[in-house]
Amino acid sequence: MNREDLKRIIQQVVLEMDENDNEIPIGISNRHIHLSQEDYNILFPNQEIEKKKALYQPGEFASEQTVTISGLKGKIAKVRLLVPLRKATQVEISKTDARKLGIDAQISMSGDLTNAKEITIETPDGSIIRKCCIVAKRHIHMSTNDTEKFGVKQGDIVKVEIETSQRKTIYDDVVVRPHPNFLLEMHLDTDEANAANVSPHTKARIVK
Amino acid sequence: MNREDLKRIIQQVVLEMDENDNEIPIGISNRHIHLSQEDYNILFPNQEIEKKKALYQPGEFASEQTVTISGLKGKIAKVRLLVPLRKATQVEISKTDARKLGIDAQISMSGDLTNAKEITIETPDGSIIRKCCIVAKRHIHMSTNDTEKFGVKQGDIVKVEIETSQRKTIYDDVVVRPHPNFLLEMHLDTDEANAANVSPHTKARIVK
Repeated sequence: MNREDLKRIIQQVVLEMDENDNEIPIGISNRHIHLSQEDYNILFPNQEIEKKKALYQPGEFASEQTVTISGLKGKIAKVRLLVPLRKATQVEISKTDARKLGIDAQISMSGDLTNAKEITIETPDGSIIRKCCIVAKRHIHMSTNDTEKFGVKQGDIVKVEIETSQRKTIYDDVVVRPHPNFLLEMHLDTDEANAANVSPHTKARIVK
Repeated sequence: MNREDLKRIIQQVVLEMDENDNEIPIGISNRHIHLSQEDYNILFPNQEIEKKKALYQPGEFASEQTVTISGLKGKIAKVRLLVPLRKATQVEISKTDARKLGIDAQISMSGDLTNAKEITIETPDGSIIRKCCIVAKRHIHMSTNDTEKFGVKQGDIVKVEIETSQRKTIYDDVVVRPHPNFLLEMHLDTDEANAANVSPHTKARIVK
C-alpha cells in the first residue's frame, strides 16, 4: 500500500466517524406505566419490585410487574411498569391504543399531566382510576455535552430525519430534553416507529 | 376602500386559493380485506354483498361483510371487506396489527403480492389460508390531470408534508398512482396517520 492509498483510507474513516458521531439511537416506547409509591402499594400490596430488563437510560428498568388498563371501549393487558417509581402515576399509550381503549388521550410531554385523561388501572390485587393517561410527545434525551455538540438547548424543537427502507420520514416537533445523566436517545412510540419502518439498528439525525 | 387596499386583498385571496389548490386530502386506511369472487363464495356462501358506506374513490365502498384474520400470535375480528371484488384476495394491515398477529408482513404496493405473507381468514361460514397479507406502501391516488398539475408521473416517489398540531411530519417514499378515474387522495395507514396526528380535515402537500 502506498502513501496515497493510506491517506485516502484514513480520510474515509474519519469522514465515516464524523457521520456516525451525529447519529442518534432510537428507543421505541411500547405502552407502559409509571407508578407513584402510593399507587404501587395499592396495585401490588406487599410485593417487591422485580427487575426484568435494564433500559438504555442509566438506572431505569422494566419490571416483572404489569397492569391492565381500560377505558370506555376496551382494555389492554400486560402493560409493563417502568422503574424507578415517580412522584405521579402516568400511563403512556399510542394513539392506536387510545382508539382501542376509547380514551381521547392528548399528545403531551412526559411529566405534564395538565391534559391527561382518566384511565382505569387494575391488577389481581387492586384497582385505581387516575387522570394520568397521555400519548408521549416525541423527544430526544441527551447529555449536557450533547447539547453543545448539536447546538441545541432544553425545550428546543428540532426536525429529525429517519432513513429507512420503504418509509423514509422526517419527524418535526421533536423536543430536546437534556440532563447530565441522560444517554443520547430519541424516543418514539410504536405508531411513530412503525410509520417510519424503524428497525433495531435504525438511527436518527437532526436536520436543519 | 381605496384601489391599493382592494389590490392587496385580491392578491391575498389569489395566493390562498393557489395554496389550497395544492392541498391533498388524506384517507386513512384501517385494516381491511379485498376478496376474489372465489374466496368470497367460500367465506360468504349464498350471501349478497351489502353496502355499508361509500368510499372516497368512485365506485368503491365498505361492505357490511367482515372477517376475522389471524396469525401465529393473535387474531383481529371485524376486518371489513372493501368492494368491488378483485382478481386476487389481499389483506392490508398496519405494522401494529402485524405485531399483534405475529405475521412478519412486508411493506408492499397494493396489488403486489410477491412478498405477501400467509394469513388465516375466517367467517362463521368458512375459512381460507392465503399468502396475501401486506402492509400497504403509502401512496397518492390522482387523476391524469392532477399529474400535470403536480408535475409527476406514474410510479414517481415524492415527499409529502403534513402540517398538524404537535406532530408535523414529512413522509418520504410516497408513490404516485394516477388513473383517469381516481380522485386526488393520499392513503396512509393508521400507524402513519397517528404518527403525524392526522385529523379528519388534515391536508397533505407535495414538497420538493
